[in-house]
Amino acid sequence: MYMKKQYDTLLKKMKELRVIEQIAQILSWDQEVMMPKGSVMQRSEQQAYVATLAHKKQTDPVIGKLLKEIKEHTDYETLSYQEKRNIYLMQRDYDRATKIPPEFVEEYTKESVISIEKWKEARTNNDYNLFKPHLEKLFELTKKYANYLNPDLPAYEVLLDLYEPGMTIEKYNKIFDPLKEATVELLEKIKQSKRKPDFSLIRRKVPIELQEKLSLELMKLFNFDMDKGRIDASAHPFTGGEYDDIRITTRYALDDFTRSLFAVMHETGHGCYEQNLPNELRYQPIGNYCSMGIHESQSRLYENIIGRSKSFWWFYLEKFKKLMGDIFSDVKYDDFILAVNAVQPSLIRVEADEVTYNLHIILRFEIERDLFEGKISIDELPEVWNKKMKETIGIDVDKISNGVIQDIHWSGGSFGYFPTYTLGNVYGAQFFAKLVQEIPDWNVGLEKGDIKSLTDWLTKNVHHKGNLYDPPELVKEVTGELPDTKYLIKHLKDKYSYLYGF
Amino acid sequence: MYMKKQYDTLLKKMKELRVIEQIAQILSWDQEVMMPKGSVMQRSEQQAYVATLAHKKQTDPVIGKLLKEIKEHTDYETLSYQEKRNIYLMQRDYDRATKIPPEFVEEYTKESVISIEKWKEARTNNDYNLFKPHLEKLFELTKKYANYLNPDLPAYEVLLDLYEPGMTIEKYNKIFDPLKEATVELLEKIKQSKRKPDFSLIRRKVPIELQEKLSLELMKLFNFDMDKGRIDASAHPFTGGEYDDIRITTRYALDDFTRSLFAVMHETGHGCYEQNLPNELRYQPIGNYCSMGIHESQSRLYENIIGRSKSFWWFYLEKFKKLMGDIFSDVKYDDFILAVNAVQPSLIRVEADEVTYNLHIILRFEIERDLFEGKISIDELPEVWNKKMKETIGIDVDKISNGVIQDIHWSGGSFGYFPTYTLGNVYGAQFFAKLVQEIPDWNVGLEKGDIKSLTDWLTKNVHHKGNLYDPPELVKEVTGELPDTKYLIKHLKDKYSYLYGF
Repeated sequence: MYMKKQYDTLLKKMKELRVIEQIAQILSWDQEVMMPKGSVMQRSEQQAYVATLAHKKQTDPVIGKLLKEIKEHTDYETLSYQEKRNIYLMQRDYDRATKIPPEFVEEYTKESVISIEKWKEARTNNDYNLFKPHLEKLFELTKKYANYLNPDLPAYEVLLDLYEPGMTIEKYNKIFDPLKEATVELLEKIKQSKRKPDFSLIRRKVPIELQEKLSLELMKLFNFDMDKGRIDASAHPFTGGEYDDIRITTRYALDDFTRSLFAVMHETGHGCYEQNLPNELRYQPIGNYCSMGIHESQSRLYENIIGRSKSFWWFYLEKFKKLMGDIFSDVKYDDFILAVNAVQPSLIRVEADEVTYNLHIILRFEIERDLFEGKISIDELPEVWNKKMKETIGIDVDKISNGVIQDIHWSGGSFGYFPTYTLGNVYGAQFFAKLVQEIPDWNVGLEKGDIKSLTDWLTKNVHHKGNLYDPPELVKEVTGELPDTKYLIKHLKDKYSYLYGF
Repeated sequence: MYMKKQYDTLLKKMKELRVIEQIAQILSWDQEVMMPKGSVMQRSEQQAYVATLAHKKQTDPVIGKLLKEIKEHTDYETLSYQEKRNIYLMQRDYDRATKIPPEFVEEYTKESVISIEKWKEARTNNDYNLFKPHLEKLFELTKKYANYLNPDLPAYEVLLDLYEPGMTIEKYNKIFDPLKEATVELLEKIKQSKRKPDFSLIRRKVPIELQEKLSLELMKLFNFDMDKGRIDASAHPFTGGEYDDIRITTRYALDDFTRSLFAVMHETGHGCYEQNLPNELRYQPIGNYCSMGIHESQSRLYENIIGRSKSFWWFYLEKFKKLMGDIFSDVKYDDFILAVNAVQPSLIRVEADEVTYNLHIILRFEIERDLFEGKISIDELPEVWNKKMKETIGIDVDKISNGVIQDIHWSGGSFGYFPTYTLGNVYGAQFFAKLVQEIPDWNVGLEKGDIKSLTDWLTKNVHHKGNLYDPPELVKEVTGELPDTKYLIKHLKDKYSYLYGF
């Protein structure tokens, strides 16, 4: 009874923190999508205020005291798994936050708001120098941040663990090495295949209004609740918000409708995950999403495994053609499927095909690792990037906005985030392999337009589990096995040998 | 020196309050313009959290203590006018806030967020009953609020003073009585005039994209800084934000371009006032806007005295026609001017002509007064509204969304706000009379497109003065006289006798 009171007080404090976090998210979303460029300083003060407030609440000594009392209580062992997991997560986040000085939170937040604006400007103007001093500053601050959290570990290791609990450079190497090998092998076979995708097909001009209509239709088709979310355009596609207010963004190109189409599917995956988090655990730490890797598993799965599948387009191509007027009326199913899955080295990560995608991630992982190990400097970044791009993906960078400053992540200080995308591919393929076991005729259904059976399965098995487990345990809980790259490799081999006929 | 430290601490606290207020404003703007309808409960928690936080900061006993110390200090009299005014405003707001219990702030904020959503729903569905229970609740809460502030005064008097310092029912009567008389007289003359506006002209269909282009052009023309603001569409036009982030909204009708055109001019007036507040006094109480009446003086002045003037359209009509393609190519200047100034009883306040507009306000003022005096109930509102509409403006209400639920104000608890619109007309006409004295050939300039001389004058004389004076003193400071309705009456008589030829 005594312990229950403390536990409830803690949950109340957690709810307060989430409300503050929601406010910060609206401000961030607004910055990306709506904010006039001239109000960046004002916004940086607002964001710094909210972040400092959240930090103050998160480091309230009462939290530490109550957690200690509960853990030392004789009845502690009688608590349920869920209660103990909540306590574990509260303790972890409390311990992390109390290591960071409040002044640092303020400085870091202000700088990142400004840096994001400078990144946008640099990207528009193809001018690295506009962004460089801010990137340098954010990089230094991020190192400092990691050092606060754990001065005994290399900064990059700290960050990897922050975005994906338990991950290390070593563990990522074990995923990336076989994946790289399989990818190189696959690319060679694809190169030698006689089947050549018709790229002109996806270059047909599609008016933005039509693409917007398509976005909405896809979101509904994938069971995104439009009463509890929205879609807009922004410089970089992302998903923001939580629970009943999920906002996804995309970007449109007149001469490449696939850019937005698959971005929308991707962000819809993120969005549905958030919308389907367990309602009864709302505002509890265990009711939050599990990790960035699990988040990306859902987005990559919606986008690639479902969204680029033969079965989906068997059902959807005719509807798509109808929606597009007569732009694609002559297009054949086989040509379309090959075109939207065409494997081709390209410059932009978010537009990369499923096979080369992981190379984009490995490239970023290696650059981040070397940056934090001091092997390369922010000054050298563009040069290193271009060289690695040539080596890894075999392609020359034409301009810096298609190169090292294409992604928003570093501008906000998110170093160590990128590897979670490939982790998402790994988890996603493994989840789907399980789904296929449980719904063997999934493709028969999908060919008739039954997407709901698939999203329902994901909701029940992944979304509804919130943050009840750390990622490897969640994967085991869902699939019976710890994460294993073999499912992703098998998925890629099966799919592309079929598409390219080898 | 000792006193300076206290004063600076107070100003720091005031800045913190404004940052919180800015966050609340972004959340409000977002609710009106962007928020998915399914997240209203979540938003109400966020808004309640921010409002409660602001209230906590505003009632910090340290504020009271520091103010007391400064005022009792032997050197108090050596403070400048500006410093004393800051102290006066801080004391006033502190005294107000400390009378309100924090739980009330939370309840009131939550209810108003929900009530606004219900109002939107009721308006869309033409169903008063969807809104009525919420309006009842908001009305009761507002009475309670007024009672907290001053239990010795009738609630409506407290609210009038809250929106416009110093105003009372008595003082409003003194403004409304001669204005009503002059209006009735004018309407009679207009009725007898042989000149009849061609209403078909403003009913010509104008595609929304063209109207959007027009909005942007007008904002720029009126010297709104587009780098520090934006425009969107919403159910009810309004202006939100402050300093470097000013957001106006409008609403578009395919068959009445004037609806948006003049709403944009109106909100641009509000927006420019906010953008031009004294930069060096930013975040100080004296750096804020003066009052709602002064705010409305700028919006009504931009909209009517400049925006509907002969001189403005002498300059702008050709440009307007060009922008509109060939929709208005046959239109003659005299017909256009009469059409956009056409006096005709109508249902919707924000679209009313300059002459009948004040009758819409008087109607609302009388209803609010009677509501608070208990002479009518929320139940009877639609009936009373329709009856008064017939009596005062001579027109039948066709549906409730054009009647008592047309305005957003009551849904958010803003009872006592409406009369400030007419006050704005009074102040605006008086300001402009002074401007005409100082720039006698203003119309010659305006005919050539020189709007900047006018907006510069308003910026220098009104905007830059922030909240240095209470409204009557500001009017005296600018014009040399206390507020006087005669300038508005003269403006209306001069303008409409010319237009209607009597």
